[in-house]
Amino acid sequence: MDFKIAVLAGDGIGPEISVQGVEVMSAVCEKFGHKVSYEYAICGADAIDRVGDPFPEKTYQVCKEADAVLFSAVGDPKFDNDPTAKVRPEQGLLAMRKKLGLFANIRPVQTFKCLIHKSPLRAELVENADFICIRELTGGMYFGEKYQDNDKAYDTNYYTRPEIERILKVAFEYAMKRRKHLTVVDKANVLASSRLWRQIAQEMAPNYPEVTTDYMFVDNAAMKMIQEPAFFDVMVTENTFGDILTDEGSVISGSMGLLPSASTGESTPVFEPIHGSWPQAKGLNIANPLAQILSVAMLFEYFDCKEEGALIRKAVDASLDANVRTPEIQVAGGDKYGTKEVGQWIVDYIKKA
Amino acid sequence: MDFKIAVLAGDGIGPEISVQGVEVMSAVCEKFGHKVSYEYAICGADAIDRVGDPFPEKTYQVCKEADAVLFSAVGDPKFDNDPTAKVRPEQGLLAMRKKLGLFANIRPVQTFKCLIHKSPLRAELVENADFICIRELTGGMYFGEKYQDNDKAYDTNYYTRPEIERILKVAFEYAMKRRKHLTVVDKANVLASSRLWRQIAQEMAPNYPEVTTDYMFVDNAAMKMIQEPAFFDVMVTENTFGDILTDEGSVISGSMGLLPSASTGESTPVFEPIHGSWPQAKGLNIANPLAQILSVAMLFEYFDCKEEGALIRKAVDASLDANVRTPEIQVAGGDKYGTKEVGQWIVDYIKKA
Ligand SMILES: CC(C)[C@H](C(=O)O)[C@@H](O)C(=O)O
Ligand SMILES: CC(C)[C@H](C(=O)O)[C@@H](O)C(=O)O
Repeated sequence: MDFKIAVLAGDGIGPEISVQGVEVMSAVCEKFGHKVSYEYAICGADAIDRVGDPFPEKTYQVCKEADAVLFSAVGDPKFDNDPTAKVRPEQGLLAMRKKLGLFANIRPVQTFKCLIHKSPLRAELVENADFICIRELTGGMYFGEKYQDNDKAYDTNYYTRPEIERILKVAFEYAMKRRKHLTVVDKANVLASSRLWRQIAQEMAPNYPEVTTDYMFVDNAAMKMIQEPAFFDVMVTENTFGDILTDEGSVISGSMGLLPSASTGESTPVFEPIHGSWPQAKGLNIANPLAQILSVAMLFEYFDCKEEGALIRKAVDASLDANVRTPEIQVAGGDKYGTKEVGQWIVDYIKKA
Repeated sequence: MDFKIAVLAGDGIGPEISVQGVEVMSAVCEKFGHKVSYEYAICGADAIDRVGDPFPEKTYQVCKEADAVLFSAVGDPKFDNDPTAKVRPEQGLLAMRKKLGLFANIRPVQTFKCLIHKSPLRAELVENADFICIRELTGGMYFGEKYQDNDKAYDTNYYTRPEIERILKVAFEYAMKRRKHLTVVDKANVLASSRLWRQIAQEMAPNYPEVTTDYMFVDNAAMKMIQEPAFFDVMVTENTFGDILTDEGSVISGSMGLLPSASTGESTPVFEPIHGSWPQAKGLNIANPLAQILSVAMLFEYFDCKEEGALIRKAVDASLDANVRTPEIQVAGGDKYGTKEVGQWIVDYIKKA
């Protein structure tokens, strides 16, 4: 294949981990005989500082013309204390999602044996946790009509049938590729929008007779994820519920710093770590590059390059087994490796494989 | 005092635990020289079966004329597989909340030493957890304008200033009575309604200079509650977020079956266990009455009868220490007590105290 990759490094530790993602991408392409080229573009606080827009038109063009976006992280504390500031890095995220039509946010919740002790949950509960949260990403209250004055405010949780059908299709297809168990999460006992979600899911389910589909209220799902995370295989939900549940899911795994995600839809897909920009660590060469590197694995898998993805996953596992780890996951007494050193070790592993 | 109590036993195990709550109420009143009278009224699936309405007008009148409602649980599996059924037990709950103006749902998240091993979280994380979730209960998407047809649907997350002010007032006052730390949970980086919540909280905070007020996005709160539950003292949020977070909070404590709640507002306050109607256990005398009994403690405390509340809490702790426990929390080899026997033990303890 011939990959044209848009690289959006963003803020904080973004640029450092981005470099490692790119090097891994290049090493894998070389090994498997793919061509790859990169276009770099600005976003987030960095882009606000430079051009006053967290997702400039130019960046959008670069993304649109690419086969995939390798995204790192956005966010800067200088925006944090004023959620009503006119221009904020998060708006860049939302603009990117909307403009690229990234309606499906896919977050595998996976545990790494050597990190299970980092989970806030008892080890026996998370050991077998391995599920995918699919969050609708371009509808619902995030993008519905809003109003605010000094005395009242509202947001509208609006969904149309095509919006619901396309995300449920993604979810059913993921379930088919996995353990064939889909949990549709909603609040159909209260919300009209949830009732439409559930109705459409019930209409579609017979088309996937091999998939066991169950329906769970969002409050129950928030409990079940903690009580029995291994229950889930694929979970799908709307934007706002998904915001809460995907974050809850990532923290129970104990492997938050290692989890990648994909956002796919109408145009170029985006691959990124689930963690943030960790501004305090910027430039210190201590950030863990594994979530970024695993997002490169997701990128390959998206293009059906399974061996490429598998090799990256193998390299990551090997680095963990060899205790080549950044400080936050290093075992007592183990050498602490920097962002670059972990990335380089993985690149070397791939080259030698 | 002279207490006029409306007793709504509801469905499933409701009637059994209700009896124990009433007996404890009576024992405490006798001990402290209060008068108490009870009016019984129907609700939930029981009321649907009898009169076709899960919160009949008559029940409403009984509640309105009472000083407090002692509520047990509603819900029946025959309604569970059809969330679009025209009349459902949950509608009774929502009607009760709206008609009685129960805008503040107060859920203490407390751990019991002897049950910490039941928490899905590592013991060291929950040991010191002791916080109160305050959920706005009569606004937001639950009651905002709704629409649904075959092709689209929406719910409206609508809040007015007075609705927000009154619930934040409750939250600030709870914080004043506790460790003086309030966390306002919202999604102000995305939602207009959240921005109004945050603006009003920021306006009110200077009136409570002793309270440390912080603001947290709902996705972060869902993580923080698992990662560091002891961080929280009082948390306040809107209806839908509160539905999710209060359930998440109750499960991390490991004491879910023991947790009571209060819903207060414009008219008669309601005290109830947070658990459901557990239809499978109906009539088996195995349901734990402690959450119901502790909701009687919350009732007394609401009326500033602190000693009365404290005595109930002491009796509950004593029953746990004496291993007088229902099957689901009994230690290996311990005698299993029934609903009635646990209730009776506590009544005896109170009488002898
Ligand atoms: C930053 C914020 C707008 C964003 C969201 O809520 O979608 C983030 O929390 C996420 O989950 O990607
Ligand atoms: C039954 C349902 C309508 C209700 C709610 O969502 O408020 C329940 O989940 C609760 O939290 O009391």
